Amino acid sequence: MERKEAQRRITELSDEILANVSKGENPFIKIPVRGSSNVIWDQDKGLLSLGDKESKRFFINVAHARKFMQTLLVASFSKQLLSEDVHASLRESFYSLKHTIKGSKENTFEEQGESDATFVDLEVALDILRDELHINADRRGVAAGHVIIEDRGDEINWSKLGSGGWAIPGNVEDIKFKDLNADYMLVVEKNATFDRLHEDKFWNKHNCVLIGTQGQAARGIRRLIHQLNKKFKIPVYAFTDSDPYGWYIYSVIKIGSMNLAHVSSKLGTPDTKFLGLTISDIYTYELENAIIRAKDVDIKRAHDLLKYPWFKHKEWEKEIKLMIKKRVKAEQEALAQKHLKFVSETYLPEKIENKEFLP
Amino acid sequence: MERKEAQRRITELSDEILANVSKGENPFIKIPVRGSSNVIWDQDKGLLSLGDKESKRFFINVAHARKFMQTLLVASFSKQLLSEDVHASLRESFYSLKHTIKGSKENTFEEQGESDATFVDLEVALDILRDELHINADRRGVAAGHVIIEDRGDEINWSKLGSGGWAIPGNVEDIKFKDLNADYMLVVEKNATFDRLHEDKFWNKHNCVLIGTQGQAARGIRRLIHQLNKKFKIPVYAFTDSDPYGWYIYSVIKIGSMNLAHVSSKLGTPDTKFLGLTISDIYTYELENAIIRAKDVDIKRAHDLLKYPWFKHKEWEKEIKLMIKKRVKAEQEALAQKHLKFVSETYLPEKIENKEFLP
Repeated sequence: MERKEAQRRITELSDEILANVSKGENPFIKIPVRGSSNVIWDQDKGLLSLGDKESKRFFINVAHARKFMQTLLVASFSKQLLSEDVHASLRESFYSLKHTIKGSKENTFEEQGESDATFVDLEVALDILRDELHINADRRGVAAGHVIIEDRGDEINWSKLGSGGWAIPGNVEDIKFKDLNADYMLVVEKNATFDRLHEDKFWNKHNCVLIGTQGQAARGIRRLIHQLNKKFKIPVYAFTDSDPYGWYIYSVIKIGSMNLAHVSSKLGTPDTKFLGLTISDIYTYELENAIIRAKDVDIKRAHDLLKYPWFKHKEWEKEIKLMIKKRVKAEQEALAQKHLKFVSETYLPEKIENKEFLP
Repeated sequence: MERKEAQRRITELSDEILANVSKGENPFIKIPVRGSSNVIWDQDKGLLSLGDKESKRFFINVAHARKFMQTLLVASFSKQLLSEDVHASLRESFYSLKHTIKGSKENTFEEQGESDATFVDLEVALDILRDELHINADRRGVAAGHVIIEDRGDEINWSKLGSGGWAIPGNVEDIKFKDLNADYMLVVEKNATFDRLHEDKFWNKHNCVLIGTQGQAARGIRRLIHQLNKKFKIPVYAFTDSDPYGWYIYSVIKIGSMNLAHVSSKLGTPDTKFLGLTISDIYTYELENAIIRAKDVDIKRAHDLLKYPWFKHKEWEKEIKLMIKKRVKAEQEALAQKHLKFVSETYLPEKIENKEFLP
């Protein structure tokens, strides 16, 4: 989205409020309801999304006034960022926004939780990504492969960055994806797995883009995957630990998350398939000596996954129930028990060749 | 260190053991004692280091036999990594090393803690970095600035990597530092601060190398700073939160850590100065509305710092005592309360211009 369009939407919001005021009406802001009561599973799109419940936040209402004030402060701050063309983290934004209101002892914001939530409100109200409002998410993740991007005037080739790779920033809105030569994206949970595949030049031998998420995929990573998928139409294969947390990482990349259901269509990539580790892999690849015993919390999470409609596939149900029955889990690095390069020379090529994916 | 030299040292170790065996003696490995009883503060070098206490690990000794076996397994595994020229993470190494000993129900290793500790033993015994044994630390951190490196055949210019920057790998042993045009290294704790300074092109305007540690500096980052300082003789300025945790991050970069005292001379950079945040900065720069109240655990840590000889400078004692007295702390992002670019346009240039560093 153009910077001007984001500014225009903020101006539109404030114009509406001004119009209310000049008509002598109680000014309000319409904000779609977030939270589980208004999150729906859109099976056709394969994404979580928001329903059509809306709330109004009024200025003259003791329960709303503080939030109303905060929303306008956050909108004004974002507009300033956009007009000056600078970006800020949520933490910087909190400090920038926090001040004591003149003639009172009242602070505009007491805790970062308040300003964070208000940025999300604005994101929903304006149907615009927080990132497009120049608010940066925390950065995490690394990329390698035959991809050429343009970023802040630099042309960057992800295949020429040595053992390090390109550090994925928290905000990828201004990046131009110039060229890509790859058949798929391979997204891996662990740094150690990224390093293994990177050292073994997996992305070069198997013509893919390699992305390391370092745990749960940060916003910048999800948006990057979304954009690459959208522009170059290549599928995404997710490779995580064999446990409910790893499977959740996969589902967030694919369908979005409950918390951020309002932006799933911009952050999620339904064209993602789960490659592994599955619980069956433990037995197929004889990793019994490298398993970890599942804890009660893992079993509880596994039961939770069974309830989600997006895990209601017989393949997933089989895996999750097997985990519960055997009370086991396994890490990506468990494959090193066969031999170090087993993952890059045998496991991944076999899985991909045989299209052994979970939906 | 050359790969061959690392292999030679492992061979030497095993030759000595073989010699013991063939003489009918009880074979043993000499390992310098780690832990606080043998850590000394070397004031001249400005580094923590190990004293000369040594222990012997015998094969024929019920208390030693298991550890003896583990040490040889780890040495053999490292030698294999070196001869095949591949690297492994600690986690992969654990899985590679773990197996059930033939004819028994005994596992070589039960938990990663055992193999991790054994790699450190070998590091001490051979006076060689674990990284030089091809064991990778977890990766973290990002770099930008006028630096040209060569890594896996790629020539990488840290000033041409857009908003992302170069992702610092866990192991920097094979990197060649070709060229550097900078007056100092600025090492910052928070991602948000890195992003702020990177967007404001601070490293370009002020001719420095910008390194983000993302919390405690990982091994790869510390080694990178050490190597750049050694080769190009530029000082390091550390910029962290104003709290005992931030100050500890600084001290680890400068003098090393108790746990890794045996490798301080390879990971530490005594030529590091502390730039901020100080507690005094809160009052000098009128950040009183952006402070955080210190918790009991912060106060306890502050008292701990006062006991360390490397914080026994009147400037540090003044700051730490001020923190204890006022019971406050502050984050780097607190400077955003003045305005977003205050840190890059005012705070840092003033501090550096006036050489307002703590030792």
